Amino acid sequence: MGVTAAVVGASGYGGGELLRLLLAHPEIEIGALAANTSAGLPVTDVHPNLPDLEGRVFTDAEALAAAEADVVFLALPHGQSAAVAATLPGTVRVVDLGADHRLADPQAWRRAYGGEHAGTWTYGMPELPGARARIAASRRVAAPGCYPTASTLALAPLLAAGLVEPKDLSVVAASGTSGAGRSAKVNLLGSEVMGDLTAYKVGTHQHRPEIVQALSGVAGTAVSLSFTPVLAPLPRGILATCSGRATVAGADPDAVYEALRAAYAGEPFVRVLPPGRWPHAAATLGGNAVHVQGTYDAESGRAIVVSAIDNLGKGAAGQALQCANLMLGLPETAGLTAQGIAP
Amino acid sequence: MGVTAAVVGASGYGGGELLRLLLAHPEIEIGALAANTSAGLPVTDVHPNLPDLEGRVFTDAEALAAAEADVVFLALPHGQSAAVAATLPGTVRVVDLGADHRLADPQAWRRAYGGEHAGTWTYGMPELPGARARIAASRRVAAPGCYPTASTLALAPLLAAGLVEPKDLSVVAASGTSGAGRSAKVNLLGSEVMGDLTAYKVGTHQHRPEIVQALSGVAGTAVSLSFTPVLAPLPRGILATCSGRATVAGADPDAVYEALRAAYAGEPFVRVLPPGRWPHAAATLGGNAVHVQGTYDAESGRAIVVSAIDNLGKGAAGQALQCANLMLGLPETAGLTAQGIAP
Amino acid sequence: MGVTAAVVGASGYGGGELLRLLLAHPEIEIGALAANTSAGLPVTDVHPNLPDLEGRVFTDAEALAAAEADVVFLALPHGQSAAVAATLPGTVRVVDLGADHRLADPQAWRRAYGGEHAGTWTYGMPELPGARARIAASRRVAAPGCYPTASTLALAPLLAAGLVEPKDLSVVAASGTSGAGRSAKVNLLGSEVMGDLTAYKVGTHQHRPEIVQALSGVAGTAVSLSFTPVLAPLPRGILATCSGRATVAGADPDAVYEALRAAYAGEPFVRVLPPGRWPHAAATLGGNAVHVQGTYDAESGRAIVVSAIDNLGKGAAGQALQCANLMLGLPETAGLTAQGIAP
Amino acid sequence: MGVTAAVVGASGYGGGELLRLLLAHPEIEIGALAANTSAGLPVTDVHPNLPDLEGRVFTDAEALAAAEADVVFLALPHGQSAAVAATLPGTVRVVDLGADHRLADPQAWRRAYGGEHAGTWTYGMPELPGARARIAASRRVAAPGCYPTASTLALAPLLAAGLVEPKDLSVVAASGTSGAGRSAKVNLLGSEVMGDLTAYKVGTHQHRPEIVQALSGVAGTAVSLSFTPVLAPLPRGILATCSGRATVAGADPDAVYEALRAAYAGEPFVRVLPPGRWPHAAATLGGNAVHVQGTYDAESGRAIVVSAIDNLGKGAAGQALQCANLMLGLPETAGLTAQGIAP
Repeated sequence: MGVTAAVVGASGYGGGELLRLLLAHPEIEIGALAANTSAGLPVTDVHPNLPDLEGRVFTDAEALAAAEADVVFLALPHGQSAAVAATLPGTVRVVDLGADHRLADPQAWRRAYGGEHAGTWTYGMPELPGARARIAASRRVAAPGCYPTASTLALAPLLAAGLVEPKDLSVVAASGTSGAGRSAKVNLLGSEVMGDLTAYKVGTHQHRPEIVQALSGVAGTAVSLSFTPVLAPLPRGILATCSGRATVAGADPDAVYEALRAAYAGEPFVRVLPPGRWPHAAATLGGNAVHVQGTYDAESGRAIVVSAIDNLGKGAAGQALQCANLMLGLPETAGLTAQGIAP
Repeated sequence: MGVTAAVVGASGYGGGELLRLLLAHPEIEIGALAANTSAGLPVTDVHPNLPDLEGRVFTDAEALAAAEADVVFLALPHGQSAAVAATLPGTVRVVDLGADHRLADPQAWRRAYGGEHAGTWTYGMPELPGARARIAASRRVAAPGCYPTASTLALAPLLAAGLVEPKDLSVVAASGTSGAGRSAKVNLLGSEVMGDLTAYKVGTHQHRPEIVQALSGVAGTAVSLSFTPVLAPLPRGILATCSGRATVAGADPDAVYEALRAAYAGEPFVRVLPPGRWPHAAATLGGNAVHVQGTYDAESGRAIVVSAIDNLGKGAAGQALQCANLMLGLPETAGLTAQGIAP
Repeated sequence: MGVTAAVVGASGYGGGELLRLLLAHPEIEIGALAANTSAGLPVTDVHPNLPDLEGRVFTDAEALAAAEADVVFLALPHGQSAAVAATLPGTVRVVDLGADHRLADPQAWRRAYGGEHAGTWTYGMPELPGARARIAASRRVAAPGCYPTASTLALAPLLAAGLVEPKDLSVVAASGTSGAGRSAKVNLLGSEVMGDLTAYKVGTHQHRPEIVQALSGVAGTAVSLSFTPVLAPLPRGILATCSGRATVAGADPDAVYEALRAAYAGEPFVRVLPPGRWPHAAATLGGNAVHVQGTYDAESGRAIVVSAIDNLGKGAAGQALQCANLMLGLPETAGLTAQGIAP
Repeated sequence: MGVTAAVVGASGYGGGELLRLLLAHPEIEIGALAANTSAGLPVTDVHPNLPDLEGRVFTDAEALAAAEADVVFLALPHGQSAAVAATLPGTVRVVDLGADHRLADPQAWRRAYGGEHAGTWTYGMPELPGARARIAASRRVAAPGCYPTASTLALAPLLAAGLVEPKDLSVVAASGTSGAGRSAKVNLLGSEVMGDLTAYKVGTHQHRPEIVQALSGVAGTAVSLSFTPVLAPLPRGILATCSGRATVAGADPDAVYEALRAAYAGEPFVRVLPPGRWPHAAATLGGNAVHVQGTYDAESGRAIVVSAIDNLGKGAAGQALQCANLMLGLPETAGLTAQGIAP
């Protein structure tokens, strides 16, 4: 007896990736597919890469309430999840790929996104300490953002092990363009982004409070973080260069690497690379993997961890499905892979 | 009880894609992995995108003879398959991703590749008339080249239906760089190919005789073909613009489209797009799909069909696995998908 | 005493490239810069690559009438040039980078673009027979489109020399994304175009009648042409693969190459490559060069010429400036270069 | 009466860009072009983008000694400049684009590059305090590396103004692939780099001591720096995200911006962007410009400056030519532009 999943916001990049994953999922059937601006369109008009959805048509979100689904994925622009979530029965599992329910502090949410805070859901990053059980027990889960996934998984083991100071953490993360969504903007045109690199929202990006919240939880104290996102000319992929000032313990040349290995032993989707190998975003393409590598840099006194993910995979749809698997009591890895497409 | 596959030439792009597919195959286990120049290296050093192969090490091809395998994939540079094949028992299924056994005419082979012709194996393009049964009955199959796959599947239905003349066919096909393999050449450097488009081997490409052979077989008469390959700045993907002079029957505005639909009805991996939609190479990324669309152009008197594939998928590893499935009596689609990764 | 140039539509890609060229022009000063939708904005907000225009602000086109200019460049979407041109004194030189005045046949224009035909101006491709003098004598010049430039300069010498039949010419031309302009469309997003190749407007592209007109003029008889444009993942550059059925004269192995050499001897911007070298779009980046190479393909009976240009250079702004130089009695090459930026 | 320039190492990317610049230089003629591995080859075989060099042939470096040149540019791999320089008369101006003569500390040089230190030349970054006059008075100038140019020009004004601490500076800089040169390496293939982002030489890159030396000179005390280079999928361009812990003076919200403005007022090639605008690498393509923007990030207590350059322009050939202009008493901007090619 299968499980049925509905997707709201199924015409965007995150929604489309989710559909691709669900099509290959051994236990989940695809139910209603809602996409307000594309309602009435054939799904394959928007996602020609998914021929197995031929015959399926987008509905609008209203139609969803009537539909039966065991799990509902919300892949909507921020500020739009709460209204849809309110129409769903409490018994239905809901995973929000958007930002609406990630932050616990309403003021932080308002500063980052504007508008009214819709409430806080369980934060869906299973690899954080204690998170797996919390997610499994939840009916409402907020899947993390793409930058927060890459950044948090890089720095959390170092904070947990006391290897870096909680203040003055630094993340410079380059991302492919799909992270900006499928909106027609001049600055996202191929003509503009190919051959370009640019920093944006320096010191003001809405993902910073989310990273700070997650890392503060791990550190047991408020962390501070400089965060600079960079737009890079590739469709998918994030490479995050993360660092913190090493404590005395962190100044041991092997400590950083060992902390990463210890933290992620047994994790199905986090791969600590062999010594001397640094992550390639391309190695994670299309999968749910996180690749990390770290070192202590004696000259600057900083511990440095570099991480790579597919921003639409572990950074969005893959992690959302990983959470759904946990919530539904399915194997955590069902329908997911740690393999990437290369070259 | 599973089937075991060995791969020779497992360190190249075609071999690496095959490993990725085999890892997800429900019935096949990965046996020996040979790669002469990388023998002794961990597989994940060469393919960091395949963490599930951690612990595996490349052997050399000699070690293969001793290994037990139900099917052996040869993913070697041309001219190297025959020697390896000679060491394998006749009972083992062998699929050659290289060019050694594709051509029936030894002279044509020598002109295209130089050296001695190694003999002709069953041509592994299941969608051609009668091919599926021939492949299933074979122990030795030559998987087609990437350009021939895109070109042949575009034009074959038109020739079979008598819609185009067999003489003066034309193919201009743009390909991503992985088609040129993982060899360190200056003209394939990222610095050279990004931002560039270039035609190469104009009128002399070794894939032309293969296309001519396949299409002549379908047409029942010798075809002639102009073939111009273009190197384009993407890692994977082929878009082939194929045309032929329309016969009287082909000048019917709907005939081309209907011929494509009829030829590929029920085919699991060939998708004739809805009218008005033209193929995108990106929609086939990572999958085994072929997307085609065609029309009759009254002004020039030509029937035009455009096709898109992933050159490492349906153009190499995917099609090889599709053939192996047939040879092994497994479901033809096992371990394969028609879905692509997008964006 | 310098010459002053005004640009209308200065915020687009063609307009921006023109500004870059004009900034380096030894004889021309930049006058009014009009851009209706960007009127009031600093020019460097739209073109941060042009810091020497700091302090300049876009005006609207109305302001132009009052401005004094010796030459006016119109870089507007099709259908908008005529209205602006009507406000300019007859004595002013005007070069239209848009399509409004390229076609002599009003019906052909209406079929291609819709709306009313605005009249026919001198066609601004100096390398065509007799064109240089006609341009120099004109006050109104229609600069050719990008695909027509690449296609016409490839095939014209063969038609003029009687080496190919006028019927059944074929052009498959891949272009970078800037050819589609700076309009915010989902299908032009970086996420969509990187990693993709797609054919579009197959048999219906508005540049076909322009190519047919130019080549028919050279051939002295009506030509017919199959034309398939392909969108490729690079910001700039066109590579056109052009062919025609060889006549008896064209079947001489050396005839094609010799015809190209003879036609373009002494031309400052057309480079016939050494034998065996095929054009690279990247080699023309940022310049006004056309690179061509050709051969006779005995197997298909076709003569094949491949050409490369920068679609914003020789395909738009460069050629427009080349025409303006001729119209103004300046050296034809002033402010232009045949060198490209590489890699 | 013109000046003659010779180039040694003229077949690489830096050398090729220098040739392009020299072709457009109003005062300099191109003399001998040496390229050992390409000696005897036509220059346009290697640089098809430079048709004006048709007829020129690469010589070997030995031939250079006999040639007359007023200025010699050495664009050689590190370790090879000293031997060539030793053959040149002391009266000839020499600009070394390589690393051999950049570092004052022989031990630092040996740690970074291995082999014997060849001596220290005047450091060729004209925008540093006092550097312009030193360069003009020198016969031997070491042109800076690409990462050092982007990093030093970003942080120097903050250090000079006392706005950041000299310890714990941080640079994460993404670079296009041409920075790695024209060597045939698998990891630089287009198939590998397109769609990828990767950090490399983390904490061990040979450009760190050069940045440290330059910034220590400005700060008047030894600085310490974390430096992480990232390889990004574009041919040219560097975007450097640079930061330092703000001092009390640096915590003034406007101080960073004002320091940049003050430092670079009147500089022809450094553009401090308008408030709110962040640098785009693409806006510097093909030019000698540096774009910078900076801010104070109160939350992390760091001052952040982002800079963009063309790594082959201001990061190599452009800056070398800027130095040569100074050494030769020519206008500093001769043959150079601050305009970039876009899109």
